[in-house]
Amino acid sequence: MSRELTVSVDAMGGDAGPGVVLAALARSLVRHPDVRYLLHGDEAILKPLLTRRAKLKARSEVRHSAEHVRMDEKPSQVLRRGRNTSMWRAIESVAKKEAEVAISSGNTGALMAMAMFQLGVIEEIDRPAIAALWPTRRGHTVVLDVGANIATDAQQLVDFAVMGEAFARAILGLERPSVGLLNVGAEDVKGNEAVRGAAQILRGVELPMEFLGFVEGDDISDGTADVVVTDGFTGNIALKTAEGTAALVVHFLRTALRRGILARLGALLASGALKTLRRKLDPRAANGGIFLGLNGVVVKSHGSADALGFASALDMAVDMARADVIPKIVADHAVVAPLFRAASNTGAAAS
Amino acid sequence: MSRELTVSVDAMGGDAGPGVVLAALARSLVRHPDVRYLLHGDEAILKPLLTRRAKLKARSEVRHSAEHVRMDEKPSQVLRRGRNTSMWRAIESVAKKEAEVAISSGNTGALMAMAMFQLGVIEEIDRPAIAALWPTRRGHTVVLDVGANIATDAQQLVDFAVMGEAFARAILGLERPSVGLLNVGAEDVKGNEAVRGAAQILRGVELPMEFLGFVEGDDISDGTADVVVTDGFTGNIALKTAEGTAALVVHFLRTALRRGILARLGALLASGALKTLRRKLDPRAANGGIFLGLNGVVVKSHGSADALGFASALDMAVDMARADVIPKIVADHAVVAPLFRAASNTGAAAS
Repeated sequence: MSRELTVSVDAMGGDAGPGVVLAALARSLVRHPDVRYLLHGDEAILKPLLTRRAKLKARSEVRHSAEHVRMDEKPSQVLRRGRNTSMWRAIESVAKKEAEVAISSGNTGALMAMAMFQLGVIEEIDRPAIAALWPTRRGHTVVLDVGANIATDAQQLVDFAVMGEAFARAILGLERPSVGLLNVGAEDVKGNEAVRGAAQILRGVELPMEFLGFVEGDDISDGTADVVVTDGFTGNIALKTAEGTAALVVHFLRTALRRGILARLGALLASGALKTLRRKLDPRAANGGIFLGLNGVVVKSHGSADALGFASALDMAVDMARADVIPKIVADHAVVAPLFRAASNTGAAAS
Repeated sequence: MSRELTVSVDAMGGDAGPGVVLAALARSLVRHPDVRYLLHGDEAILKPLLTRRAKLKARSEVRHSAEHVRMDEKPSQVLRRGRNTSMWRAIESVAKKEAEVAISSGNTGALMAMAMFQLGVIEEIDRPAIAALWPTRRGHTVVLDVGANIATDAQQLVDFAVMGEAFARAILGLERPSVGLLNVGAEDVKGNEAVRGAAQILRGVELPMEFLGFVEGDDISDGTADVVVTDGFTGNIALKTAEGTAALVVHFLRTALRRGILARLGALLASGALKTLRRKLDPRAANGGIFLGLNGVVVKSHGSADALGFASALDMAVDMARADVIPKIVADHAVVAPLFRAASNTGAAAS
């Protein structure tokens, strides 16, 4: 039996609104009947919505917060004025150990800033990262960072590699995940100083992972590595480019299958197979950006996710809360941290 | 009638070898019967191959070169020792005005270094870029840089925007192409200094284009912009990620259509439509990296391209040679160059 678990929910975040969030919670509750929810948001909105969902109501506690974070607010702004928002309170419940994990589909930058402020970053880790689970030919690959950090040096990339392998061991159940550094070519001379510096460090260090060196963009979908490490600028653009490409191919397929009677008939006969394909490519199934490097578990659902998408992110949050990812990151980071200390003491910066 | 044109070919480059190159030339000659070829390479290999292709032989002249550039050689190495290679000689023919365009499927870095050395970079342009034509929902989008420059500042991104719009006007026949800067979000505050600086400049300048501001990864496939500008690190990874994703979706589709008798029958009936889809997604159809910013036209075919892929790159080379891209770049760059001169004189660097 799985142990009881409390999920702290920003019920007001996202474009879709509280109705969608509650529908997602109800859906996830079927799969995780032992989970409790702390619902942060406007009780005048949440309470009436809950009366229609008796089972969810029985497992939920509403915590009123008068305000919420808007999608276009700057993180710095939100940190100043945001203490009464549902997002702040959702994270606060994790900081106060009332809940094991917080989830929100609101403003990513604000969520990260608040999480860093309230939960703190794991000691000696410079910056947290956001990880995504990416469908591949051989299952799933963990890609990070997909948007938390615009500029990244060698040390930060090494940190991401440690966080990624710890996550893959905890969540994907791999003993010794393979890790690749995303680059423009496989040869040692390729890329910028950050990726070359990180590769040099990762080649020489003993961690519970197999370091593959550099991998390229097409290696992600091929499933060449269990974990792909990159800076948040490149990772974010790669993730959205892949989503766009998958949608484009499905669009081309749909258009092709509408042309002519034979194609239509064929599509009808193969409709079960095409449905399987659609399910496999459904971006909602892999929804959820996982914040790694914090002293607490926070999951970000896509801002425009519907109930199915938010429920996937909830599943990820529950898995994360039950797996001991943070102690694994702390233990493995203790292996690499002395390298950076040594480098900065001798004045030879790793980046 | 189109005017006579000479294409200078590195017949030894690429993984596939001279046989594939000659097959591609023969294929392209059917579409462009008025093109002449200068074939650079080992005549002991090329001449026997040509005897079997009478039509191609009639339009070709073999120029013997004893050596060729290997795929793993460093550009700096090649510049020192490479004067007798087929790649060097192929570019030399353009430098000497014996040919209008050079094409090679060899080592990209070496080809760019040799092209910069022999043809020179357009005055006041800092670095050339490699552009790719990307299939989208609405036709094709020009994406650059896809691999020539690892690090890029604001001025270089502005240069790429100018080269991209000039290319789109010349090759896609657009009067006022739309141009977007690839970033992790559409808001002004997003991204690194380079993209924010470039956006600021492009918003204030009068060019024959519509500047859209920032676009995101999924905007490429959506065809939001006719030209998408990015640094070579991100562009290369985005391009390969998209290729990998398209291949993954086709793999999922194929697997789904093999499961069960109905799916197989449906696939059989829809086979014409599925063939259309495959043609649409065939990476060979959009093969060819276009070098922009040089005083001469050079096209790079994919290293592992087969005859069909190399022939597509040849078509692009012929189109490029016939369109007046370079004068358009020179004219439009004259509009932005004074901005950088002013900025560097006052000490306020654009990046």
